[in-house]
Amino acid sequence: MNNLPDTPVPDPGSSGDKQAEPVTTTAPNKSSALKKTSRYRSRSLSASSTDSFSSASYTGSSSDDGDDVPPREKVQKNTKGNSDFCVRNIAGQHAFGRREIEIAEQEMPGIMALRKRAADDKPLKDAKIVGCTHINAQTAVLIETLVELGASVRWAACNIYSTQNEVAAALAEADIPIFAWRGETEEDFWWCIDRCVNAESWQPNMILDDGGDATHLMLKKYPTMFKLVKGIVEESVTGVHRLYQLSKAGKLTVPAMNVNDSVTKTKFDNLYSCKESILDSLKRSTDVMFGGKQVVVCGYGDVGKGCAQALKGQGCIVYITEIDPICALQASMDGFRVVKLNEVIRNVDIVVTATGNKNVVVREHMDKMKSGCIVCNMGHSNTEIDVNGLRTPDLTWEKVRSQVDHIIWPEGKYIILLAEGRLVNLSCSSIPSFAVSITSATQALALIELFNAPPGRYKSDVYLLPKKMDEYVASLHLPTFDAHLTELSDEQAKYMGLNKAGPFKPNYYRY
Amino acid sequence: MNNLPDTPVPDPGSSGDKQAEPVTTTAPNKSSALKKTSRYRSRSLSASSTDSFSSASYTGSSSDDGDDVPPREKVQKNTKGNSDFCVRNIAGQHAFGRREIEIAEQEMPGIMALRKRAADDKPLKDAKIVGCTHINAQTAVLIETLVELGASVRWAACNIYSTQNEVAAALAEADIPIFAWRGETEEDFWWCIDRCVNAESWQPNMILDDGGDATHLMLKKYPTMFKLVKGIVEESVTGVHRLYQLSKAGKLTVPAMNVNDSVTKTKFDNLYSCKESILDSLKRSTDVMFGGKQVVVCGYGDVGKGCAQALKGQGCIVYITEIDPICALQASMDGFRVVKLNEVIRNVDIVVTATGNKNVVVREHMDKMKSGCIVCNMGHSNTEIDVNGLRTPDLTWEKVRSQVDHIIWPEGKYIILLAEGRLVNLSCSSIPSFAVSITSATQALALIELFNAPPGRYKSDVYLLPKKMDEYVASLHLPTFDAHLTELSDEQAKYMGLNKAGPFKPNYYRY
Amino acid sequence: MNNLPDTPVPDPGSSGDKQAEPVTTTAPNKSSALKKTSRYRSRSLSASSTDSFSSASYTGSSSDDGDDVPPREKVQKNTKGNSDFCVRNIAGQHAFGRREIEIAEQEMPGIMALRKRAADDKPLKDAKIVGCTHINAQTAVLIETLVELGASVRWAACNIYSTQNEVAAALAEADIPIFAWRGETEEDFWWCIDRCVNAESWQPNMILDDGGDATHLMLKKYPTMFKLVKGIVEESVTGVHRLYQLSKAGKLTVPAMNVNDSVTKTKFDNLYSCKESILDSLKRSTDVMFGGKQVVVCGYGDVGKGCAQALKGQGCIVYITEIDPICALQASMDGFRVVKLNEVIRNVDIVVTATGNKNVVVREHMDKMKSGCIVCNMGHSNTEIDVNGLRTPDLTWEKVRSQVDHIIWPEGKYIILLAEGRLVNLSCSSIPSFAVSITSATQALALIELFNAPPGRYKSDVYLLPKKMDEYVASLHLPTFDAHLTELSDEQAKYMGLNKAGPFKPNYYRY
Amino acid sequence: MNNLPDTPVPDPGSSGDKQAEPVTTTAPNKSSALKKTSRYRSRSLSASSTDSFSSASYTGSSSDDGDDVPPREKVQKNTKGNSDFCVRNIAGQHAFGRREIEIAEQEMPGIMALRKRAADDKPLKDAKIVGCTHINAQTAVLIETLVELGASVRWAACNIYSTQNEVAAALAEADIPIFAWRGETEEDFWWCIDRCVNAESWQPNMILDDGGDATHLMLKKYPTMFKLVKGIVEESVTGVHRLYQLSKAGKLTVPAMNVNDSVTKTKFDNLYSCKESILDSLKRSTDVMFGGKQVVVCGYGDVGKGCAQALKGQGCIVYITEIDPICALQASMDGFRVVKLNEVIRNVDIVVTATGNKNVVVREHMDKMKSGCIVCNMGHSNTEIDVNGLRTPDLTWEKVRSQVDHIIWPEGKYIILLAEGRLVNLSCSSIPSFAVSITSATQALALIELFNAPPGRYKSDVYLLPKKMDEYVASLHLPTFDAHLTELSDEQAKYMGLNKAGPFKPNYYRY
Repeated sequence: MNNLPDTPVPDPGSSGDKQAEPVTTTAPNKSSALKKTSRYRSRSLSASSTDSFSSASYTGSSSDDGDDVPPREKVQKNTKGNSDFCVRNIAGQHAFGRREIEIAEQEMPGIMALRKRAADDKPLKDAKIVGCTHINAQTAVLIETLVELGASVRWAACNIYSTQNEVAAALAEADIPIFAWRGETEEDFWWCIDRCVNAESWQPNMILDDGGDATHLMLKKYPTMFKLVKGIVEESVTGVHRLYQLSKAGKLTVPAMNVNDSVTKTKFDNLYSCKESILDSLKRSTDVMFGGKQVVVCGYGDVGKGCAQALKGQGCIVYITEIDPICALQASMDGFRVVKLNEVIRNVDIVVTATGNKNVVVREHMDKMKSGCIVCNMGHSNTEIDVNGLRTPDLTWEKVRSQVDHIIWPEGKYIILLAEGRLVNLSCSSIPSFAVSITSATQALALIELFNAPPGRYKSDVYLLPKKMDEYVASLHLPTFDAHLTELSDEQAKYMGLNKAGPFKPNYYRY
Repeated sequence: MNNLPDTPVPDPGSSGDKQAEPVTTTAPNKSSALKKTSRYRSRSLSASSTDSFSSASYTGSSSDDGDDVPPREKVQKNTKGNSDFCVRNIAGQHAFGRREIEIAEQEMPGIMALRKRAADDKPLKDAKIVGCTHINAQTAVLIETLVELGASVRWAACNIYSTQNEVAAALAEADIPIFAWRGETEEDFWWCIDRCVNAESWQPNMILDDGGDATHLMLKKYPTMFKLVKGIVEESVTGVHRLYQLSKAGKLTVPAMNVNDSVTKTKFDNLYSCKESILDSLKRSTDVMFGGKQVVVCGYGDVGKGCAQALKGQGCIVYITEIDPICALQASMDGFRVVKLNEVIRNVDIVVTATGNKNVVVREHMDKMKSGCIVCNMGHSNTEIDVNGLRTPDLTWEKVRSQVDHIIWPEGKYIILLAEGRLVNLSCSSIPSFAVSITSATQALALIELFNAPPGRYKSDVYLLPKKMDEYVASLHLPTFDAHLTELSDEQAKYMGLNKAGPFKPNYYRY
Repeated sequence: MNNLPDTPVPDPGSSGDKQAEPVTTTAPNKSSALKKTSRYRSRSLSASSTDSFSSASYTGSSSDDGDDVPPREKVQKNTKGNSDFCVRNIAGQHAFGRREIEIAEQEMPGIMALRKRAADDKPLKDAKIVGCTHINAQTAVLIETLVELGASVRWAACNIYSTQNEVAAALAEADIPIFAWRGETEEDFWWCIDRCVNAESWQPNMILDDGGDATHLMLKKYPTMFKLVKGIVEESVTGVHRLYQLSKAGKLTVPAMNVNDSVTKTKFDNLYSCKESILDSLKRSTDVMFGGKQVVVCGYGDVGKGCAQALKGQGCIVYITEIDPICALQASMDGFRVVKLNEVIRNVDIVVTATGNKNVVVREHMDKMKSGCIVCNMGHSNTEIDVNGLRTPDLTWEKVRSQVDHIIWPEGKYIILLAEGRLVNLSCSSIPSFAVSITSATQALALIELFNAPPGRYKSDVYLLPKKMDEYVASLHLPTFDAHLTELSDEQAKYMGLNKAGPFKPNYYRY
Repeated sequence: MNNLPDTPVPDPGSSGDKQAEPVTTTAPNKSSALKKTSRYRSRSLSASSTDSFSSASYTGSSSDDGDDVPPREKVQKNTKGNSDFCVRNIAGQHAFGRREIEIAEQEMPGIMALRKRAADDKPLKDAKIVGCTHINAQTAVLIETLVELGASVRWAACNIYSTQNEVAAALAEADIPIFAWRGETEEDFWWCIDRCVNAESWQPNMILDDGGDATHLMLKKYPTMFKLVKGIVEESVTGVHRLYQLSKAGKLTVPAMNVNDSVTKTKFDNLYSCKESILDSLKRSTDVMFGGKQVVVCGYGDVGKGCAQALKGQGCIVYITEIDPICALQASMDGFRVVKLNEVIRNVDIVVTATGNKNVVVREHMDKMKSGCIVCNMGHSNTEIDVNGLRTPDLTWEKVRSQVDHIIWPEGKYIILLAEGRLVNLSCSSIPSFAVSITSATQALALIELFNAPPGRYKSDVYLLPKKMDEYVASLHLPTFDAHLTELSDEQAKYMGLNKAGPFKPNYYRY
């Protein structure tokens, strides 16, 4: 694997990486297309997989194909005669899905470059990966990259609503054992994961998880199999939280990589994805004009920063609410008024939540909003806006467009609720594939690192990706911008005490 | 000390704070008025104190007062008859200095609020602090705050050029034992520090250092005294670097706080100070018009980010050079072209260095610049621009204003070099007192924390300030902006797993 | 009409308003939803009405309703038994259309305020208006406002593609004689206009035109009727151009108002509408990520300024091409590189035309573009991009989404052409109703002014709206932003030589 | 004069140029270094010339040279023996002044290019120009350019405070008859102008005026001489106002060019100069930090727009006050809250006036300001802030720096008044020479045009510069930015109805 960076031996004991602090005040884990909501906190595991995810409705996926036979009851083969998969309908859909994958490939330069560079090395030769993520064009590019790098995979969906059926069909047609369709039942959901974990002649040795369900199932149901796993890569807040809990409880018997808190995720996926998608979400759903609109953004973490910057750039007057004095001071210095929600709630035209917390906007606030106020959530799951508080007999709900409800007060005032309080950028806009590419490349490198690490490099603990890998992921994406890196001279490297190939920063560097 | 936050017991073993990584590629330690240049790297200790520092020339300090008697040979008393100090000229200058201190107080709300809140507690009662920093109106506010909080102090300058004589006079008049004047000799320099360490009936128990000289002298010359010290607070890259080296060598026998890498320093002092001062530095020295000018900023760390943002905001076209792919990707996504210096050097109107490295701009580059190109350094010490390469017989230097040289090529082309390659914002602009206030409050809290910590909380090691203290410092500065923090409800705090009073973020949070 | 401003008597002889300069280099006439393309220049009148206009596809309008009976052959009545209209299908569509109108009303505060303020005055009592504009929810608000102000109207579409059938149905249901449907033939088109001009017991006395077709028909076919008209209000470049030509030829026998060059149109509709819609158009059609993308905007007039500002604000690197040195200097001072197209064409990711000219981007340029380059037109009609140059046998066209074509070169490179070179913001995004409200209010006031002007105030010439009317239109839109105007004191008004009620600027003021 | 554009014959009767509307609500005439304050309105002519002008204090001019002999009583010769001038002190100062002129030349590409291009043509051969402007390095470049183009000149200062003595000395040394020094008496002032008008063997035929004093004197005192003048070029609001009054009164017997309302002046000098200088003025005088500061800008004309944009760009929260609904709507759409001053006066940190009006900020407002509030004027003369209202016995004035006063209320609150309410950018910052270059080139071209116009082209009236000249001025400044204009093809020019060499826009185009 000559083209990939060497990895220094990390010392988990002296890094801050192991600290189990999965939650923050400022939506630090805003994934893009791969976001998994926190399910454990409020309800049972089984309920979790029902988070609605409707972005595919904007990219051409059809969920209603007039085919009512449950996939598990159908016998399907791909054109090569292979039938080790379960999707909605392979025959009519795989071509469209393939095209969507091809379009995504063009916008995912990092993961495609990785595919190319490591194609000869096959760094994942002999890797047997159980995957459990959203199934869409962008994750398909990741899955096929893993295969190109030598891995065998079996893949399920991490969410019963989010699968793009056409993409699943295209993967099945490409002989990838995929078990996923939009609209799975809870039982289907676990059946699919089970089919990925437990198959004939199949001892998985790696897990790529988004939410921790595959890990959970294997640990509970196939503990012997679990002990043979070499590594877990986890992307979501929730999954990482569960891994830290396992670790604390002494039940984590394999090393795991926390991709959720990597610099590429927090500083690119969260900040830039949200900067790009907040405007798009609001425009597509409401056609609102931004110039001169008053907006309050709740939370000034990476997500809030991205939203505030984009909205201000388009001529909005933006207010910020914060609980953390450091983030509040950043907002102030950046030219935003930091207020309590009640100070501005009667005047604002748009409310955006980005806190990672719950009940940030409640009925009491919504009673005070002016008519026509738009309310949406860019933060965490569907907890930030207390939508249940709006489901009372005195209020009338009227769906005016897909993902857009008018909630009408008796006196005629109404507010405009987007995506019923779920993540508006997943529901009402597309996520730039480029941002997803950064996270996907990080996941792939984490798999490579854990799979190839010499014995002893990683203990049964939760790690952050070595900084050098972060830097490598970033470097894969520079050609898109025709960006040219400067190289240190020998003299400069010595002066700085750096290796010319990096890493270039201490672990605590904040970017 | 009821008004200050409680401190959790930090565990240096499990944090990333101890890692000795004092240098980075992107000028991470851009202090404001208190910046100490890295002296150890290239030459002897004694040479270090000659870094020129001329900002005082913009704020009314007179260095030439027609008084040629060396301060050490003069007998001076303040109006109360006290003579335990050594300054240039107390009689004619203290009133002016006092006024400058009063003006600074109005722009340093954080440190003044701390003074007020803790005045009754006297958290530094019985503290005996040896201080060694720049001496200007802003540090005077810090010094007098420490005294108000109960401390006894003795204070010297950390730089032979930077003392504002009037401010030193005002401190002497206020009975503070101060030993500093602009234009000390190397021998004077060490004599002053010695007078602060070694005095009658004086066993210091705390050190506030900027560059490590007081620490160094005490450790070398008064090792017994050094062992009785309870803590060191160090602010500079260089000083922190020396502390980590001492720690590695097992010679650090007291706990030390690394203020240099605190979030308040890196994310406020570096970013915002530079954003404010780059424009000011260029305008005051050259009257350049920004609109449409092409600028290359070398380095996209906190300093480079601040510079690039400010320049773009005023209508410049900004290019970035970087060695670190992550910072380069940030620059790209932020809308800057990332180039190698040679690609743009012939076209740019302004070159700003912000790398923390040496020889970033060398003669070869300057030979290619177009006539009238402005070259300045916002990064590290005076190493970034190879000024020596310009001191050749074929080139003519012409000083056109204070801090502004035209270097003229034989064919008539000239470039405009600011501050002879030293830090332009220290030389050619003022530093916002507000930004200094943030760092000063951090220093004061670090002293309080170390002085009051129960035995065992800190070992003989180098620590970052506990996050809660960072948050407290930030909170002290919010009233300036009339910023109103939101408080977590009990339910929300529980949901987030947070204490309602903070800390609100994990240690690795990047802001 | 106490609530409307008094109008000073303008003197067309001494103003610059009459100058016939309908075209400029920089797309000065970018209308929003009401844009009419220049038809006369390249082909016959009849061809003009076929400019495709597909924005309605984004707002819920269905063009295919499975009803193949031509409207002219159907007998339809509204629920009140009235049949003086001709639309596609009144029965199934008017409710949906009414709802779209109601939504538009909420975003059109100016025209609604005008409706309210003048409701008692009925300033258009006895006005009989022939209208010929696009038919959509926003123009419906205008039409119904005219009726509320006392006018009788008969209305046709100015474009055979742009009618929102549901809105037309709603107007018909409201007893408004409307003759329009999406997909008219050329013959239908003129038949509809004729039905508006020539009806029983109907002598029109005002014309509201967008493109000049109603004016043309009445002048040619019903010259006697035309002479009884009191005034014409025209909104498009083309229509204004025709009026100036008529005036020059001595054939204009009625006064006309040129709304196209009013300050509210050029400085609000053009600048802000385009600033809002360029991002939206690109996102909805291509999901492109903006951060770091290189974009060339051809033309730096109001449209180009809006596009450049929006794109830069979202992190694009923007280049400008210009023919006019003044606009080029503005671009330079604003921080954009001014280049010839060939200098950057190989590197850019997006090309936006905004010149008002023809063949700005031709095959030769497109041959040099890199694969994946997006090409779109924000400027004038469909002339700016030489789309015909792409219809050659060696290139393959592939429609990947509605309004999105990949044009594929033999070697595999492709470019992404939006809306086949037509106005992308009309085709691929929605236009903010607020911006339309400004233009609509201007049109309504122009009608009121001409209809109520005392004899002799206006001769048979082309006028700009009196400045006081422009100011009044602006004032109607301020409450949306909760903006509070300051009033001049008597002393200040005297000092400035101004009337306290305005107008506040000389005619040549540039805003 | 082959290199200059041909001039079409303008028709003053049909343009809006003659309208006498010299004042507006929004400081439309903000000159840069050449600004003349409105003197006629409030006091006698003689008082007018005392407007303080202190920018030279920032650029090295010394007003106190220890030479107390009044210039008029001294006998001075330059090194060539010439004595036809009167300056403070030629001997010791001309070298320094020459150097300042040379530096200015490098930043004034337009006027220097004009000098070069027209050097052979000598378009001002036989022109005899009386000049009356500020005397500084930038006007010196203009004066010497006129001489290079063939003109004979005699020059006086238009303001008794603003002369840079060193520059005057350098001009005298270069044999230019210059009569000006800093600190003239009123009598000196008129004596100097008289010396320029009335000299042996000198019949002036052109006037370049800034404020109208030379015109006034010649008209009153030498009416016969005045009738032989071929043209007047006037740059200030006041002077233009006087010309329109003369014209109305039928007393204007020569054609005059109104440079004050040219597009290059309003859209470049006003907007960009102020955008550049507001930050500089505030920083140099107060060292204020901008991030998070609340600022109210009174007036949103070109000056206010420039100020608001710059301050927002540096992180201020900006409020706008306006009397004109159109400008107010622009401010709203641009993302600024439009308020009445009283709504925000208690909260703001900085107040900037830019209205062109009087008593915009009065004592009542200042009584409500918070302590430390900064108050300054960017608009018109010294009328906008009612400084007299602060000169009451209860308030204490304390000068803390040059141009900076603390006005202290009895209870201890103070406000910071800059430049005693005069134009802060003239008093506390430098003006970019580049912006001045644009206006200077316009003046020179206006002189050339009037001097060379064939008989009959201009009547005895006030004209705006022909658009083609404006475009030519702009084109002279493009090489500074390496900006490359696109040329129209024949086909495109025909399509647009344009001449390929311009002019490119109708007269009413707003840019």
